[in-house]
Amino acid sequence: MFESAELGHKIDKETYDKEVPLLREALLEAQMDLARQAKFQVIILVSGVDGAGRGETVNLLNEWMDPRFIQTHGMGDPSDEELDRPMMWRFWRELPPKGRIGVFLGSWYTWPILNRVAGNTKTADLDQSLERARRLETMLTAEGALILKFWMHLSREKQKKRLKLLEKDPKTRWRVTERDWEHYKRYDKFQVVSESVIRHTSTAEAPWTIVEGFDARYRGLTVGKVVLDAIRKHLDEAGTKMTEVFAPPPLPSIDRLDILKTLDLSQKIDKKNYEAELEKYQGKLALLTRSPKFKEITVIALFEGNDAAGKGGAIRRITGALDARYYNIIPVAAPTEEERAQPYLWRFWRHIPRRGRMTIFDRSWYGRVLVERVEDFCSKTDWMRAYSEINDFEAQLVRHKIVVVKCWLSISKDEQLKRFKEREEIGFKRFKITEEDWRNHKKWDEYEHAVCDMVDRTSTNIAPWTLVEANDKYFARIKILKTVCRQIETAMKN
Amino acid sequence: MFESAELGHKIDKETYDKEVPLLREALLEAQMDLARQAKFQVIILVSGVDGAGRGETVNLLNEWMDPRFIQTHGMGDPSDEELDRPMMWRFWRELPPKGRIGVFLGSWYTWPILNRVAGNTKTADLDQSLERARRLETMLTAEGALILKFWMHLSREKQKKRLKLLEKDPKTRWRVTERDWEHYKRYDKFQVVSESVIRHTSTAEAPWTIVEGFDARYRGLTVGKVVLDAIRKHLDEAGTKMTEVFAPPPLPSIDRLDILKTLDLSQKIDKKNYEAELEKYQGKLALLTRSPKFKEITVIALFEGNDAAGKGGAIRRITGALDARYYNIIPVAAPTEEERAQPYLWRFWRHIPRRGRMTIFDRSWYGRVLVERVEDFCSKTDWMRAYSEINDFEAQLVRHKIVVVKCWLSISKDEQLKRFKEREEIGFKRFKITEEDWRNHKKWDEYEHAVCDMVDRTSTNIAPWTLVEANDKYFARIKILKTVCRQIETAMKN
Repeated sequence: MFESAELGHKIDKETYDKEVPLLREALLEAQMDLARQAKFQVIILVSGVDGAGRGETVNLLNEWMDPRFIQTHGMGDPSDEELDRPMMWRFWRELPPKGRIGVFLGSWYTWPILNRVAGNTKTADLDQSLERARRLETMLTAEGALILKFWMHLSREKQKKRLKLLEKDPKTRWRVTERDWEHYKRYDKFQVVSESVIRHTSTAEAPWTIVEGFDARYRGLTVGKVVLDAIRKHLDEAGTKMTEVFAPPPLPSIDRLDILKTLDLSQKIDKKNYEAELEKYQGKLALLTRSPKFKEITVIALFEGNDAAGKGGAIRRITGALDARYYNIIPVAAPTEEERAQPYLWRFWRHIPRRGRMTIFDRSWYGRVLVERVEDFCSKTDWMRAYSEINDFEAQLVRHKIVVVKCWLSISKDEQLKRFKEREEIGFKRFKITEEDWRNHKKWDEYEHAVCDMVDRTSTNIAPWTLVEANDKYFARIKILKTVCRQIETAMKN
Repeated sequence: MFESAELGHKIDKETYDKEVPLLREALLEAQMDLARQAKFQVIILVSGVDGAGRGETVNLLNEWMDPRFIQTHGMGDPSDEELDRPMMWRFWRELPPKGRIGVFLGSWYTWPILNRVAGNTKTADLDQSLERARRLETMLTAEGALILKFWMHLSREKQKKRLKLLEKDPKTRWRVTERDWEHYKRYDKFQVVSESVIRHTSTAEAPWTIVEGFDARYRGLTVGKVVLDAIRKHLDEAGTKMTEVFAPPPLPSIDRLDILKTLDLSQKIDKKNYEAELEKYQGKLALLTRSPKFKEITVIALFEGNDAAGKGGAIRRITGALDARYYNIIPVAAPTEEERAQPYLWRFWRHIPRRGRMTIFDRSWYGRVLVERVEDFCSKTDWMRAYSEINDFEAQLVRHKIVVVKCWLSISKDEQLKRFKEREEIGFKRFKITEEDWRNHKKWDEYEHAVCDMVDRTSTNIAPWTLVEANDKYFARIKILKTVCRQIETAMKN
């Protein structure tokens, strides 16, 4: 795997001095086109062996390009705010928007590799991390991002030579740390692990480029040219590119029987019982969220449902039991300009709460497979791949001890019609009903189909859907409160 | 000051039950109008005596209002990311956008009060903090924000009684901590300090409302009504309100002599000297920014200048010496949608870097008193108040050991014309010149006037302007590099 990167590649000064100005101009132009079109972002990962010039290469790229539109992130030790969230959060928060370039020194590969080399993890753990990295990259590229992964390589002898050279020069001595020499001692182990990483994650969408790191001129020119070619090619393709559908299509509805039709929407409870139950479960939720154990978990609850199914009312019955300092409600409507310049999950990642807190999403990332699907706001390929992307996303949350509560509030078509009419009649509820609601009402069957697919494909053991019969608001609210309490209790027991 | 809040205010259950539904409906409607118009944000600060029901009141507000558009922030101990920035950064990051309500439990008053009561600070320090708070609030209200400040009060006896009551009930026992009883022992001291805080910061724009905290019904209803009235009134006024100009107008230019005209733009250095100096000062900057002491400071460098004055080139000469992981360039163009929904300084606060890092602004907050002034993008009142707001902002940065470097790159009108024409002729530079540049060129005198006012009013000891003669690019770049090195050196010596 590293053979070509141990041949002793070299570029003489004359060639270099001739090539660089041309390369720079071309890079600048490509960058301008990228910024102007703003159709995709470029994510550059720079990894590799210590002393192979990772930092220098990144600095060179920054020097060559327009620094306003490129940003470099040194992913060192995470901050406490980052430790409080799933590992990937720190990458999501630094993701470049469309039109920009983000360079990551240290990536989602760094810790899996280091941990494996140090013997803190097993091969199975490493494989798991790599599988996750692969899936993340697949998603990002499907969202249009261009991912370039560079591995700066040195042979064992060359690494030693480079480290010695760097140590000799007072101007570069600070670059060589104890840790570098420690890593050097584990060169062979490091080599084996890296090779397996590169092998497992060189996908068609985001292959690794291995670059021999000894000669600075060769290294710089090579990386520059790869970056240039990749951006140029991606610019030419953007818009015309057809991504293949890589998930089987959802089940067709042949007998018109579906999971929503099996719900008994006539279930109800009377006012007196409701009030007693409400007090009971709000009290329970209040105690649960104020217990010391709650500080160790995080809760994300999301609510989807038919229009007028009573999401808002149900949410208020939950927050009524909470301390306002520790929860947060995110109403999900059309994305903002900054959100539109990012992969669609970005706008949810940015709201992942810290430990001991609850975030409630009023509508959620499932918009992708509901309204965006039905209204053709995204392509079929986009919403089809969303199911597995969402499952991956939620799996990351759950792995980080985040309780994911997902409720679908279901009402009948007749009940919806009744509620719409009521809303039109009552003054202060009138703002709640729009033309769009009526349009959606007409697409009832399509929405129902989308909901069933969603439940089939995203109700998992770790993050199950709760279907809530909501023709009776009292019944729905109590069922939701019970669900939230139960999921929190279970999580706190573990 | 607290007399009215020790009268034993009380509301009976019957009145309460009758009033609350009406209040809630009115609050909801006001909130909807607020969200729809999205012309201003509401900032509610809840402070006061322990046990006076601050938390309960906030929870009540959240229960009454639509939780999607109100957000509560418990400002406890700051995170490490927050400690790395000026104190106000954590409030800026939680500021509600226009149309929303942000409730702060714990505010910019909390720590000044607690520190003074504990004897960690002197009265002078407290006064200084209050002056800063006052100026912040003046700025926020001038930007349209509605600020409501509640002080929940209890007399000495009532506080004791409330704490005992809370302790007795198993459901509320967790609310009373050791700290509460400690504070109680210092009741008198606390009282004196609070009174002085309230007195000094009850301004016309943002007065304190003192509420007796003993009776929950009285407390809740009072706060609810104040919030409702204030939002309603502000909604009616929004748009029609005229803010008074509270800064004297800038100097008129009578003899047409100004500071820019005193610059000797003919200064230049030849290529050979340039290259030697460039190497020298880039090397110096490289060493400075890599020294251990640099980890204790932060650098913010901003560049303003005539169009085509060479800002980009100068910035690249700086970044050429830096490690790309530790700097960040923020090109300032038109604000994004999310930025437009905030006070104008918000978009700069969000980019304040952590310790040991440098952020370079290509154009900056000075746009307010340059392009926005000349092009009438904001009112005269707005840009006139901006001078002192900017000085306050920079003072906060400097107090936090942030080095603020400000460079104005000055070229002559003829030189600009020459460069514009060059740009039109050279292929890959053509994207740099737009219609707008030509329009600005015609407004040369107005811009010059604005620049002189800016320098006069914002060049301070702690954050001075450096005027850079930029007709010769070499000369300008070296002067800038020297300035950056000098300011960093000075800061690291302190």
